[in-house]
Amino acid sequence: MHKFRNDYCEVAHEAVLAALLENKEQQFVGYGLDEHSLNASKMIKDMFNCPNADVHFLVGGTQTNLTFISYVLKDYEATVAVKTGHINVHETGAVEATGHKIYTVDGRDGKISVDDIEKVIKYHSDEHMVKPKLVYISNSTEIGTIYSKSEIEAIYNYCKDNGLYLFVDGARLACALMSDDNDLTSQDLAKNCDAFYLGGTKNGLMFGEALVITNKDLQADFRYQIKNKGAMLAKGFISGIQFEAILKDNLYFKIAKNANNMAKLLYEKLVSLKLDVDPVYTNQLFVKVNNSLANKIIEAFGCELWSKQGGYSVVRFVTSFNTKIEDIDEVYNYLKHIK
Amino acid sequence: MHKFRNDYCEVAHEAVLAALLENKEQQFVGYGLDEHSLNASKMIKDMFNCPNADVHFLVGGTQTNLTFISYVLKDYEATVAVKTGHINVHETGAVEATGHKIYTVDGRDGKISVDDIEKVIKYHSDEHMVKPKLVYISNSTEIGTIYSKSEIEAIYNYCKDNGLYLFVDGARLACALMSDDNDLTSQDLAKNCDAFYLGGTKNGLMFGEALVITNKDLQADFRYQIKNKGAMLAKGFISGIQFEAILKDNLYFKIAKNANNMAKLLYEKLVSLKLDVDPVYTNQLFVKVNNSLANKIIEAFGCELWSKQGGYSVVRFVTSFNTKIEDIDEVYNYLKHIK
Amino acid sequence: MHKFRNDYCEVAHEAVLAALLENKEQQFVGYGLDEHSLNASKMIKDMFNCPNADVHFLVGGTQTNLTFISYVLKDYEATVAVKTGHINVHETGAVEATGHKIYTVDGRDGKISVDDIEKVIKYHSDEHMVKPKLVYISNSTEIGTIYSKSEIEAIYNYCKDNGLYLFVDGARLACALMSDDNDLTSQDLAKNCDAFYLGGTKNGLMFGEALVITNKDLQADFRYQIKNKGAMLAKGFISGIQFEAILKDNLYFKIAKNANNMAKLLYEKLVSLKLDVDPVYTNQLFVKVNNSLANKIIEAFGCELWSKQGGYSVVRFVTSFNTKIEDIDEVYNYLKHIK
Amino acid sequence: MHKFRNDYCEVAHEAVLAALLENKEQQFVGYGLDEHSLNASKMIKDMFNCPNADVHFLVGGTQTNLTFISYVLKDYEATVAVKTGHINVHETGAVEATGHKIYTVDGRDGKISVDDIEKVIKYHSDEHMVKPKLVYISNSTEIGTIYSKSEIEAIYNYCKDNGLYLFVDGARLACALMSDDNDLTSQDLAKNCDAFYLGGTKNGLMFGEALVITNKDLQADFRYQIKNKGAMLAKGFISGIQFEAILKDNLYFKIAKNANNMAKLLYEKLVSLKLDVDPVYTNQLFVKVNNSLANKIIEAFGCELWSKQGGYSVVRFVTSFNTKIEDIDEVYNYLKHIK
Repeated sequence: MHKFRNDYCEVAHEAVLAALLENKEQQFVGYGLDEHSLNASKMIKDMFNCPNADVHFLVGGTQTNLTFISYVLKDYEATVAVKTGHINVHETGAVEATGHKIYTVDGRDGKISVDDIEKVIKYHSDEHMVKPKLVYISNSTEIGTIYSKSEIEAIYNYCKDNGLYLFVDGARLACALMSDDNDLTSQDLAKNCDAFYLGGTKNGLMFGEALVITNKDLQADFRYQIKNKGAMLAKGFISGIQFEAILKDNLYFKIAKNANNMAKLLYEKLVSLKLDVDPVYTNQLFVKVNNSLANKIIEAFGCELWSKQGGYSVVRFVTSFNTKIEDIDEVYNYLKHIK
Repeated sequence: MHKFRNDYCEVAHEAVLAALLENKEQQFVGYGLDEHSLNASKMIKDMFNCPNADVHFLVGGTQTNLTFISYVLKDYEATVAVKTGHINVHETGAVEATGHKIYTVDGRDGKISVDDIEKVIKYHSDEHMVKPKLVYISNSTEIGTIYSKSEIEAIYNYCKDNGLYLFVDGARLACALMSDDNDLTSQDLAKNCDAFYLGGTKNGLMFGEALVITNKDLQADFRYQIKNKGAMLAKGFISGIQFEAILKDNLYFKIAKNANNMAKLLYEKLVSLKLDVDPVYTNQLFVKVNNSLANKIIEAFGCELWSKQGGYSVVRFVTSFNTKIEDIDEVYNYLKHIK
Repeated sequence: MHKFRNDYCEVAHEAVLAALLENKEQQFVGYGLDEHSLNASKMIKDMFNCPNADVHFLVGGTQTNLTFISYVLKDYEATVAVKTGHINVHETGAVEATGHKIYTVDGRDGKISVDDIEKVIKYHSDEHMVKPKLVYISNSTEIGTIYSKSEIEAIYNYCKDNGLYLFVDGARLACALMSDDNDLTSQDLAKNCDAFYLGGTKNGLMFGEALVITNKDLQADFRYQIKNKGAMLAKGFISGIQFEAILKDNLYFKIAKNANNMAKLLYEKLVSLKLDVDPVYTNQLFVKVNNSLANKIIEAFGCELWSKQGGYSVVRFVTSFNTKIEDIDEVYNYLKHIK
Repeated sequence: MHKFRNDYCEVAHEAVLAALLENKEQQFVGYGLDEHSLNASKMIKDMFNCPNADVHFLVGGTQTNLTFISYVLKDYEATVAVKTGHINVHETGAVEATGHKIYTVDGRDGKISVDDIEKVIKYHSDEHMVKPKLVYISNSTEIGTIYSKSEIEAIYNYCKDNGLYLFVDGARLACALMSDDNDLTSQDLAKNCDAFYLGGTKNGLMFGEALVITNKDLQADFRYQIKNKGAMLAKGFISGIQFEAILKDNLYFKIAKNANNMAKLLYEKLVSLKLDVDPVYTNQLFVKVNNSLANKIIEAFGCELWSKQGGYSVVRFVTSFNTKIEDIDEVYNYLKHIK
């Protein structure tokens, strides 16, 4: 049966593998200076309408976050994030290991607001406390919600007015931008932050995240920083070839749309079974079931146990570029039968 | 024309690509806990006869070096290396960025000796100086030389007697072990150090280095360290699949042997042309020519300019799994003609 | 008028200055290896009945915290502390700057409980999250409360059972141990943690904190760590002379008792004026007054504004070795008059 | 007998102690914001004619070096220093612990030249190597030599032309500026570097170094950096009082002159005894004697053994504010007798 554990459990989208095969007889210069990397970079800058941005291809999300954040901050400067932020919970202290505090706020629906940030700024009054300098948000968030255009604009305006940088973790950016509930365009995003990244690992690539630095002040010598963090891929052209393949003909967004659609379909099926499902915005779906049913679902579909309270568990389904209608039907039939 | 710039300018050996394609319909658990990673790990432990070792797959060499070294050392402890060591020259301060000094010695032929290490130990006498704790060597070295069995044994014995760890950077380990001049077996190596890594990037993989920690005292919680450095690959199975493919039927060593053979053949051809070539042990060849010829070679074969003194330049040729006799002939004919 | 801003606003207790003068004709070896430092160290080990402990004299509290915590933890390991903990709020990210996350809990009355710690341990389940390894508590706490013997014993037992270390920040330890509400002896403390420090800066010295490492596993090479963090005082004998002077004839505790008594007296006086004062355990007193009165108190007595809510402010009074009954009377008369 | 081990083996100059006693009844604000610190800061800016500089009082030399260097450099940037530089040899990896490589050159007479720096700059060509960004020199150097005005000007001009910063470790700056061989004025120094510090520990204070940042670009938020490194003294006024006392009436330079004079006198005496003494520029004197005599000198005068080769040892004498003619006579008589 199809597993819904996450969106990075398959080798890669076939277009990606095909592109690698096409290039197997070639020799390339290393470290991302090859034509494929340059072309993929240009495609991204066109797509996001940010011709003056710098694009760097890194291998994974934690690596991208730690490399960029440590580049931006001075020793005493801190990142502001929601408690559920990936850098705070699931990166094993990677950002702190580069020397920087993550100051967390509770937020709401996995998102930070201008009010949250303002409270942090007001609280940090002098040199006996860290200096908040960079706001980290994820879009889509770690729980599948998305930021609206007005929310991101408000945050970025506040940041600019207060000497803060805004960095958007886009591990699942494609799903966010393809959400039926989304009103933020690619261009809006690029205009409303200092840097963001387009996730590849969770959207069809073998690996790879494209960091886009739009703020000119944060671009100088960034390749040194990448190497300093052990993040510069010798065969950088493999990142370039992959991104080129996935960006071509808008495939990057089409497959994200498929993931979203499958999650929405699953949502409708589960609701029809009277299950207690959270609203679905992107490709993550959270359903609350009794512990016994949770265990069965986890076994059958490889889902992750998200949380547990009393007799109930929240179980997460993640759809991907490779999830098909039949896979959803399988879940439906299984649950219909078992309930 | 075939380029001799380095051994990581092609996508991958065809066996590696074939293995990825074979697995494209599968779903795997992430982070290196899949069956392919486990199997590749077992193959390595068998090959090096170190059943109690821990094997971890990382993406690149700098990453492997910084992740392991920072795991081993306390804040005030230092690494000892030769001046030409990769961590000292070509990693943009990655080890220092994790907080540790690299104390360098001149060495000879790119190699460190027991005498070198002993001088360092004697010089560092008290808590006002760093405490040398880990000896870093590369085999083959950055200039293509190799350590003999007796050299490595002597170094490791000295290390054990003096509370030091020995770590072997094996970015080009396969070429070292396949050298005609080599008398060190895989098993000898594993027995005579605390950890080493088998390079994949420079020997046929798209990416990947297999870190083998043989010292039980250095194994606990190492997966935390990997994640902490942003070095844990989400789709770890892609490393596993690649290593499995390259280790199968001894392919890993066969292709290294090819690289060595091609370098030796090139050596003979260049000598026959009365060129001033350094002795060749593995897959790197250094030839000293006048600056004008150097420029032509660099343009024609993509070689790296290694150093320059007065009117002469040293140019480096690197052979790989993919270098063929015809490619060597091409160099020969070119040089024969041009001289 | 006497200022109640903090307990480190005067040069030093006269006994400390006298001891420095007595030694002004002498020459000493540096870096804390002199006879005064050795003697002060012995006095501390006797007083806390921990003959096998190592004692190190450092300059300040933040320095002591960061030097010890970074010594204990591996890169991926974290400290657990209450939100109000000094390392979390008022050290400008010093611990994070050494590479380690501080995972915070809400706690109660400025204190952490076994339940708090247990929740943290259970939440951190695998290598994608930091590994909590050291529990940091302050006694007295940042808000003047103290830990009972049973509380500290319970915490330390839990720590030992779960592979955690317990570190006690004793910037105001003397006041804690001299509290009327205290049931923890010096010996109890030393037996129920892995390390603690005796604050000197806030109890009569010009500067200086005595770090006492009772756990043998955390002692090796600690002097290297001190130097590595820039924390080794060249004229270490000045720390030794000061501690010797303040420990002699139990002066260290006598002056802390004075500070506590003065705070208690102030409490009674303020209560008699019907002011809203928090219970007082040590030498810090928090009183809630309207904003207008708060401003007057701050101006007259140099108090710190602790927090502000609506029309009310919480103002902090700190008493010290040098606070006298007349100083308290002065506050009383001022407030009696002004109200 | 007077010991010549170093220049920091006595409590402090009597003027310093007197100043502390004078202020013992006062209460001050903390963290260096008191009137004495402000006044001492002003005195320094006047003396060095750098009204726009920022002055910060830190406790020790290693602390000052690591705090400033880590403030200036980005992760991938390195310091350039001579091999004998204090940060390279005797700070237990403190600078590397903040994440930065120290790239060393051999230099001559303990000093770096423009040629040395230029070679480093040319060698570091791309992002696979660290980026040299700050030149660290000591004046006087670790072996007692001094930089001439033209040497420092040349270095600073080269630095400015090549985007490098120049930082002068002035642990023994007073002795350098008071050398008979010196042609560099205080004002020359301040104009020809980005930052320097005036050493107090080695010139009459209990502790304390005054960091003077003349480059406006390196001043913002530096107090955050101090706190972040655990280097902010709670009772900052004790630094201020000390510096005020030692700077008054030029005492700071007068006592350095005494140290220099005593070293010169000792030099003449030793030469008259036909001993093999290095030229003396400041307050350090190195004499080469046979091992047996070296041991006797070390025992009698507490000198440090500097190096050992074959049957000979180099022994170091250090004079200080407190060395008197009688102390030199004592050495002379002892050696005259023993030879």
